[in-house]
Amino acid sequence: MASSSALSLRSSSSATASNPAVGGQRQRLIILGTGWGGYSVLRNVDKSLYDVVVISPRNHFLFTPLLASTTVGTLEFRSIIEPVRNVGFRQSDHFHLSEAMDLDVKNKVVTCQSVIDRSTLYNLEYDKLVISVGAISNTFGVPGVREHTFFLKEVSDARAIRNRILSNFELALHPGISEEEKKRLLHIIIVGGGPTGVEFGAELYDFVKEDVSRLYKQEQGHVQVSLIEGRKILGAFNKKLQQYAEKKIRARSQMELIQANVSSVQADSVTLSDGRTIPCGLVVWSTGLAPRPFVESLDLPKNQQGQLLTNRRLQVAEVDDGSIFAIGDCGEIEEDPLPCTAQVAERQGRYLAKLLAHQGPASDLPPYQFQGFGMLAYVGDYKALADTPAMKTQGFSSWVLWRSAYLTRLGSWRLRMQVPIDWTKTLLFGRDTSRF
Amino acid sequence: MASSSALSLRSSSSATASNPAVGGQRQRLIILGTGWGGYSVLRNVDKSLYDVVVISPRNHFLFTPLLASTTVGTLEFRSIIEPVRNVGFRQSDHFHLSEAMDLDVKNKVVTCQSVIDRSTLYNLEYDKLVISVGAISNTFGVPGVREHTFFLKEVSDARAIRNRILSNFELALHPGISEEEKKRLLHIIIVGGGPTGVEFGAELYDFVKEDVSRLYKQEQGHVQVSLIEGRKILGAFNKKLQQYAEKKIRARSQMELIQANVSSVQADSVTLSDGRTIPCGLVVWSTGLAPRPFVESLDLPKNQQGQLLTNRRLQVAEVDDGSIFAIGDCGEIEEDPLPCTAQVAERQGRYLAKLLAHQGPASDLPPYQFQGFGMLAYVGDYKALADTPAMKTQGFSSWVLWRSAYLTRLGSWRLRMQVPIDWTKTLLFGRDTSRF
Repeated sequence: MASSSALSLRSSSSATASNPAVGGQRQRLIILGTGWGGYSVLRNVDKSLYDVVVISPRNHFLFTPLLASTTVGTLEFRSIIEPVRNVGFRQSDHFHLSEAMDLDVKNKVVTCQSVIDRSTLYNLEYDKLVISVGAISNTFGVPGVREHTFFLKEVSDARAIRNRILSNFELALHPGISEEEKKRLLHIIIVGGGPTGVEFGAELYDFVKEDVSRLYKQEQGHVQVSLIEGRKILGAFNKKLQQYAEKKIRARSQMELIQANVSSVQADSVTLSDGRTIPCGLVVWSTGLAPRPFVESLDLPKNQQGQLLTNRRLQVAEVDDGSIFAIGDCGEIEEDPLPCTAQVAERQGRYLAKLLAHQGPASDLPPYQFQGFGMLAYVGDYKALADTPAMKTQGFSSWVLWRSAYLTRLGSWRLRMQVPIDWTKTLLFGRDTSRF
Repeated sequence: MASSSALSLRSSSSATASNPAVGGQRQRLIILGTGWGGYSVLRNVDKSLYDVVVISPRNHFLFTPLLASTTVGTLEFRSIIEPVRNVGFRQSDHFHLSEAMDLDVKNKVVTCQSVIDRSTLYNLEYDKLVISVGAISNTFGVPGVREHTFFLKEVSDARAIRNRILSNFELALHPGISEEEKKRLLHIIIVGGGPTGVEFGAELYDFVKEDVSRLYKQEQGHVQVSLIEGRKILGAFNKKLQQYAEKKIRARSQMELIQANVSSVQADSVTLSDGRTIPCGLVVWSTGLAPRPFVESLDLPKNQQGQLLTNRRLQVAEVDDGSIFAIGDCGEIEEDPLPCTAQVAERQGRYLAKLLAHQGPASDLPPYQFQGFGMLAYVGDYKALADTPAMKTQGFSSWVLWRSAYLTRLGSWRLRMQVPIDWTKTLLFGRDTSRF
């Protein structure tokens, strides 16, 4: 099998014959991660200036704002992902399906581990390094979360949720299942009232209204969705829009907003801080972010949330030659903290691509400044919120905006072709309830 | 959790309020399986005459002739499956995601086990029973087959193969992998030269030619596909077409036809009956069929291959009241043995639907007679074989026929809409190489 010794490959790689144009002069840029930040750097960076090497445990980019739509089959999984290799690498081995495990800042070396064969470890030297590994879901130390809840960050999460929902609907129809057990199986709890939690709830609502009524008619009355949030839902949105969303959700007979904190999760229930225990068949946990183990392990300046501190040119603090950058959820600009959103990460990636193309000191360039388009959130039933600098709107027109905004932001024609087809199929034929 | 005691539900179910029209007069028809045979009965049977209850471990119908295309991403998994519930059941609990475990012919009772919660067992009474559970892959007792090879019968098989292919391509690019190990990882062995094996080889060939050359350029020279068959490939086809296919495959530098039998399979190699051991990264096993354990357990007349023997009206032999039918791969008409193909099963299902609608003795109706459209097989590079009663052709025109024949046979507009879109996407953007 594969060699398990760590080896340095710099010399052999930069001497390859397929590199005639710039030869040894081209610097090696290593990008860690293929999320919004890393993928944005990869797409925008001038590849004639760098040997761009990407290290990621995921060989695709995921359009996260539409992930909730895949949990119930409104969209298909592959309709919102783009294989990273399609961006085009100078050499096939410039993409590694691996994870960064360790960083030697002084010698400029990253240690990587293959995610396919964990015994394959190796070192790679870099000239410039972009840390864009994102973050993981925060359990806040609540017992049972890791064992019994589903996160909603990756395609594999969405697929697990979809299979669980369909399994529970099928199981509840089996002969001999008690009414109480049916209710438990069909009670879905969402913990966290941010955009992910609210949009997942919206998709569930549409699924129950449009498809359960048709395909699982006998169960429709048993379905219940509870959204648990300690503070206000959609806290980052304009107050008027927030209230609109809250009102919409509260008006739905099969949805409930519970203002509470979760103290523990069991295999078949959730216990709240007030002592109540709610039986349920599925818990989706979407309450906040925590640093990845790799970022945690780094001996570099961080904020309280464990994010790497950077200057306004996204360079990690206390790295003297400015060769390490941190963008997206795993970094914070010390003088200008920004929310952990896809937009911020994507724009930081673009800025960084410009900065990396710049000949001369980084300080020549104006610092990074975020100008967001605003926020959108789907609340179900063809209604959405749009909280933009220019307007605060809600309802059907905002839903049209929501769909068209995401459609134009999809990174490739392949996706821009498939997503509206999925939408049309859902409209014409209903959602796909196959479980495999 | 669910009750684990077996209970009989006939009385409670037939007394439900949603059954006013025919009331207790309507007979219960139980269909076991949702493959070509069972799904064909389900779609075609007159549902005003029967309470149709379907028992299957799979809640979708799979268009098997196109399954090989999904292993490399030419088509997407969900583009060739149709959720069974879309057919429309009188009551949601008329479909059970369960497996038949036991049959009591005398009392007309099937014992079922939930595939979601194995502790849920229950009995169902029937008036008429259709056994259309298909067959499983035959290992012929070769050691290592079950542990180390992939079958190609279900969507989950195709997904496992696709992930393994992509994992091997990614792993082979990791630093420190020897040339020998690269060759092993990228050597794919197909055991069995029937249509499934040949078409999977054809898809691999296209994938290597069209996508590996673009996305995994450094590995292209290492890829090798071997097709192992003890006799002639495509044995059921006209000899001229067979020779054409053989010639095409042999002309490909990265494909090899090996005439041999396999004596054992290991984690990283295959050993042939002549003693040779061939290192490889993936083995797909597609050599023949064996009866399912449920069919094996039945105390009813069977042939040597373990198929249930039926008369020409598809009624299982020695069941006096003619209430049990066997169609597709799990049955054989004693006086008119037919090949185990999708076409046979599908047409038997249609015949059976007619027979079930017939008032009066089955012997009034003409016996089942198979008139096939013929056989098609894709051999790669936009070339196919067509072996039909009217003509024997090969090449590009047969490929056009192959595509259009399958397209018109797809069972629903949802699939008929998506499959050509997938083909177009593959043509325009290449295959999706995401692994998740």
